Amino acid sequence: MKSAFREASVLRYAPGPVKFALFGAGRIGAVHAANMAVVQGAQLAYVVDVNRAAADALAARHGAKVGSREEALAAVDAVLIASATSTHVDLICAAAEAKRAIFCEKPIDLDLAKADRAIAAVKQAGVPFFVGFNRRFDPNFAAVKAAAEAGKVGAIETVTITSRDPAPPPIEYVKVSGGIFRDMMIHDFDMARWLLPEEPVSVFAAGSNLVSEEIAKAGDIDTACVVLETANGVLCQISNSRRAVYGYDQRIEVFGSKGMLRAENPLETTLGYANEQGVAAAKLPYFFLERYSEAYRRELAFFVKGVESGAVFAGAEDGRRALLLAEAALRSLASGKREKIT
Amino acid sequence: MKSAFREASVLRYAPGPVKFALFGAGRIGAVHAANMAVVQGAQLAYVVDVNRAAADALAARHGAKVGSREEALAAVDAVLIASATSTHVDLICAAAEAKRAIFCEKPIDLDLAKADRAIAAVKQAGVPFFVGFNRRFDPNFAAVKAAAEAGKVGAIETVTITSRDPAPPPIEYVKVSGGIFRDMMIHDFDMARWLLPEEPVSVFAAGSNLVSEEIAKAGDIDTACVVLETANGVLCQISNSRRAVYGYDQRIEVFGSKGMLRAENPLETTLGYANEQGVAAAKLPYFFLERYSEAYRRELAFFVKGVESGAVFAGAEDGRRALLLAEAALRSLASGKREKIT
Amino acid sequence: MKSAFREASVLRYAPGPVKFALFGAGRIGAVHAANMAVVQGAQLAYVVDVNRAAADALAARHGAKVGSREEALAAVDAVLIASATSTHVDLICAAAEAKRAIFCEKPIDLDLAKADRAIAAVKQAGVPFFVGFNRRFDPNFAAVKAAAEAGKVGAIETVTITSRDPAPPPIEYVKVSGGIFRDMMIHDFDMARWLLPEEPVSVFAAGSNLVSEEIAKAGDIDTACVVLETANGVLCQISNSRRAVYGYDQRIEVFGSKGMLRAENPLETTLGYANEQGVAAAKLPYFFLERYSEAYRRELAFFVKGVESGAVFAGAEDGRRALLLAEAALRSLASGKREKIT
Amino acid sequence: MKSAFREASVLRYAPGPVKFALFGAGRIGAVHAANMAVVQGAQLAYVVDVNRAAADALAARHGAKVGSREEALAAVDAVLIASATSTHVDLICAAAEAKRAIFCEKPIDLDLAKADRAIAAVKQAGVPFFVGFNRRFDPNFAAVKAAAEAGKVGAIETVTITSRDPAPPPIEYVKVSGGIFRDMMIHDFDMARWLLPEEPVSVFAAGSNLVSEEIAKAGDIDTACVVLETANGVLCQISNSRRAVYGYDQRIEVFGSKGMLRAENPLETTLGYANEQGVAAAKLPYFFLERYSEAYRRELAFFVKGVESGAVFAGAEDGRRALLLAEAALRSLASGKREKIT
Repeated sequence: MKSAFREASVLRYAPGPVKFALFGAGRIGAVHAANMAVVQGAQLAYVVDVNRAAADALAARHGAKVGSREEALAAVDAVLIASATSTHVDLICAAAEAKRAIFCEKPIDLDLAKADRAIAAVKQAGVPFFVGFNRRFDPNFAAVKAAAEAGKVGAIETVTITSRDPAPPPIEYVKVSGGIFRDMMIHDFDMARWLLPEEPVSVFAAGSNLVSEEIAKAGDIDTACVVLETANGVLCQISNSRRAVYGYDQRIEVFGSKGMLRAENPLETTLGYANEQGVAAAKLPYFFLERYSEAYRRELAFFVKGVESGAVFAGAEDGRRALLLAEAALRSLASGKREKIT
Repeated sequence: MKSAFREASVLRYAPGPVKFALFGAGRIGAVHAANMAVVQGAQLAYVVDVNRAAADALAARHGAKVGSREEALAAVDAVLIASATSTHVDLICAAAEAKRAIFCEKPIDLDLAKADRAIAAVKQAGVPFFVGFNRRFDPNFAAVKAAAEAGKVGAIETVTITSRDPAPPPIEYVKVSGGIFRDMMIHDFDMARWLLPEEPVSVFAAGSNLVSEEIAKAGDIDTACVVLETANGVLCQISNSRRAVYGYDQRIEVFGSKGMLRAENPLETTLGYANEQGVAAAKLPYFFLERYSEAYRRELAFFVKGVESGAVFAGAEDGRRALLLAEAALRSLASGKREKIT
Repeated sequence: MKSAFREASVLRYAPGPVKFALFGAGRIGAVHAANMAVVQGAQLAYVVDVNRAAADALAARHGAKVGSREEALAAVDAVLIASATSTHVDLICAAAEAKRAIFCEKPIDLDLAKADRAIAAVKQAGVPFFVGFNRRFDPNFAAVKAAAEAGKVGAIETVTITSRDPAPPPIEYVKVSGGIFRDMMIHDFDMARWLLPEEPVSVFAAGSNLVSEEIAKAGDIDTACVVLETANGVLCQISNSRRAVYGYDQRIEVFGSKGMLRAENPLETTLGYANEQGVAAAKLPYFFLERYSEAYRRELAFFVKGVESGAVFAGAEDGRRALLLAEAALRSLASGKREKIT
Repeated sequence: MKSAFREASVLRYAPGPVKFALFGAGRIGAVHAANMAVVQGAQLAYVVDVNRAAADALAARHGAKVGSREEALAAVDAVLIASATSTHVDLICAAAEAKRAIFCEKPIDLDLAKADRAIAAVKQAGVPFFVGFNRRFDPNFAAVKAAAEAGKVGAIETVTITSRDPAPPPIEYVKVSGGIFRDMMIHDFDMARWLLPEEPVSVFAAGSNLVSEEIAKAGDIDTACVVLETANGVLCQISNSRRAVYGYDQRIEVFGSKGMLRAENPLETTLGYANEQGVAAAKLPYFFLERYSEAYRRELAFFVKGVESGAVFAGAEDGRRALLLAEAALRSLASGKREKIT
């Protein structure tokens, strides 16, 4: 499978820090703003948000300006789109027209046709483009990927992905989420595609309601096991649950002809405590902001480097393919059969 | 799922060590003989083997006698059957008739009808009977089971079993083995049944030939991923490979509403070595004799205790049920569908 | 031992972020500046450095101004002194006079009398004051400390501290460093005082030249083992080396009547790799900037919180006491005897 | 330091298993008897004990005979002396005269002059001789030793030994034990000598009464930290406590110019348990019979192999040197100074 992260457009930018306009001053926007303060070569120049107070506070904190979309686009090298999903396509098109490099939180859009329109605009403009699949930048997962690419396990034969949230989202969110495969396992489908040596061609899905009756009433499941197969018979198993009381359980394992690679869960500290009961260690990080904080920094650094060299066009196709896997998994759940990915 | 290990017959024996006749002086017979020397309450009295030299050597080593089947049965409290599978049913029937307690290596027989005949004889005689599912006595797996039964994970929701052999068996063995599901994953099916809160009702199997062309030519697979489901939706995923270059990879994980339990692979030593490359640890045990040495001791101690109290009748039904799972997995591999276990 | 971090002055500040003047735009200054961008309640307002280009670059990056000492002191709530040690006392006195809260990198001064003058000025002004003993804010060590204070090990009996640098500093630095006890083990002496239930009263030191002939020629040692004792017989052993090829080895262990607490070295990732050679893990962080990055953030957050409540006066006495331990260790190295700490 | 285990006498024995007479049918005798049943090439032939019932039981269990010292010596290849310490010298002399290979539990005798007499008799007879320093055969420690000898850490610079018993022995035992250095740390002194690249030349000892008032009243200490130094400045720190509530804490660490080796405590199982409180693991082995069970097997196998080749003369001098270290530690405890080892 050719890595999308290797594709490149050919723009070249002037030296100096990459000046960003940040669209969206909410929780994830604040994460990106803080990262711009620590990532070499990044600089937050503008904050744009309909919530003016939030924009003001974030801008003041980081020495940036607050302005309109137009003012911001006119004054920066790049945009980081962390606003509501429904605004992504318009912002991408506007930024592409203004010839700005684009970092967009995923998904581009829930509607593939609209997403296609945005991607077309980006391609026509030839600007650097990046959709943030943050897990690929987790240092632990990236170390597995790098070692696998370096041949440490030989031919990859079985990939195992465990992914469990600490607690279910609010039921109102679940109802509009598109279901566990589109909303939660989609991240694991992307990890699977990233780690497998070729695209999966079929999927089998088993699912249950073991966590929440509310989720069952909403027509969704909360527990799932999925098996993917590639054309050459490489296998991938994925396990999901909407609730792991011990924290955010995020593990991968790559097994092959020459060995096995794993990324285990990090723990909050390296504390060890021995008493009559045994030996105890610390807790897992609670959720994604804690677990993937370093990944957010690294994806920004990756984007900045890509912008500096003009060489980044990543993630547009990955989102589409992960969604196709989610849809095939849904069909399999209904049919009880292995379903082709089309 | 009611544990088969809790069933009991009602025989009572006189005090003193349990005197054993060992049938079979081969590799696994020698393991059992050595364990009889260290397990409290066990004593090797007779060794029976058509290979007289092997019998003599083993008997001499442990201060036991060598004799015929009849001599041995007349002089002991219990038999341990570690001879070729084809001899199991006859030996069981003879021992049952002689009212001896019976420890039989699995399987009872590859032919379920013949196995039934042996079990019927045992039941009629009312003697203690035990088929050795050694993994249930592995201290690591037993600790997971005990903690799960103590409610440590609450309601069990997903069980994950990883089971990889260090290297494929000789191709001549593969050809008569019944295939990976009956020969190798059957142990994992037993672990699944042991750990799941209720019997699985369906199975989905995916399999590939990634390790050995010879195995493919023999009509078998060498890599497999299986998903089991119970009536209430509890899930179990099993991963098998015929070759793990790093050793005998045997892990289980039980995930539930209140936590997660794992048994990781033991390592040969607790060595840690840090240098410029990172931190290195020791190797895994190479194969089952190393990994399950303690399990063999513990299953013998369990049997001896059961014989002393007259209270053991275990494993007869477990073997049958694991085989049913294997056969359903084979059907699923052919159909590409979730198959019912009948 | 009463924790210095519990003492408090009584100033109260107005709400809003704590505006900082940063003195020193070098490597550690840049760390603090970046942390001000991410620590809640902190804001970098001014950068002061004789190297105008460095000050300009850092200020531009974080939206701060560049100015003179006087301009800066007039416009901020707090100073962070990260300039050369020789400038610390003057800056502390000036900041105290201006009634600004003070965060000073350690040491205050190599000359205890000068340091005393600065502390006296701070006390007279009644301003919040903090000398950065960053290791106390390492999450791993802090977790050990918190658990020990919560009684997890009962009465503390033996403390073990391992502290090894990846590589010796330049020999020119060694020559003016004051020697391994004042320059390197002083951090461990502070950890010992922090973890022991009472002040140590004696020290025994053994030391060798095993790493570098240059260090020997400079009259210093590069390897040392020290034993501290308190009045009630609590023991502490410290091991130092100027060179650990595997990275920055920083561990503590607290043993007591009810158990044992450890903080092990973190590793760069949670990677595990199994092959024929064994199981391998990732590397240790290379040195203090990597290992203690989170500690630097946390000590700044602690200071900001202390400034907000007016309640921080920490580290002035700790520096002095650690130095007394270093000097007693030097005497012991010469005498071969346990030396009293005076 | 030349390894004592490399010395050899030149006797050659006939092929076949090494037949043992076991002197002493108590707890440790039973351990050795069971090991003779599983160690290749060993065979228990005779049990000798003044407690005839104990001898009968153990002999019956392993198919051995019971007899007098003379009967036993006449009929075997080797003796294993596991009787009371006061009987060791006589038994060694008798066995040497009978030209039998000798495995003696340590110590040879508490009186060095008597011990010397036994060793002289052994040397004159030229028989294989082995004093059981079981820790050297612990697989974990042996792995560290082997890696160190293979140059994995380069030049050894600092050795760290942690050794804590689960609970103090009965006070009546403490009173006659010779004190913590002769009774407990003597094992660690042997480990230190085994791991250090040359003999230690000085020792500093600090000790306290933190565990038991009874021990203090008996004139002994219960907590100690010791520092050893070799002529070339290699350092070794040893930490002892008579009570570790979490089990038998036995760790070593070897630090050198090219890396660091550790043997950590094994745990009873590989269980991992994650819940809201964190991640928990199993307990340590409780005490030496559990922790060193494999070491007892391996030291017997080593001896058997040595007897088969005629090439073993080990441990006689090691016991004496460890005792000299203990006595120098006692002097240091009194003087507060580094004391020479003479």
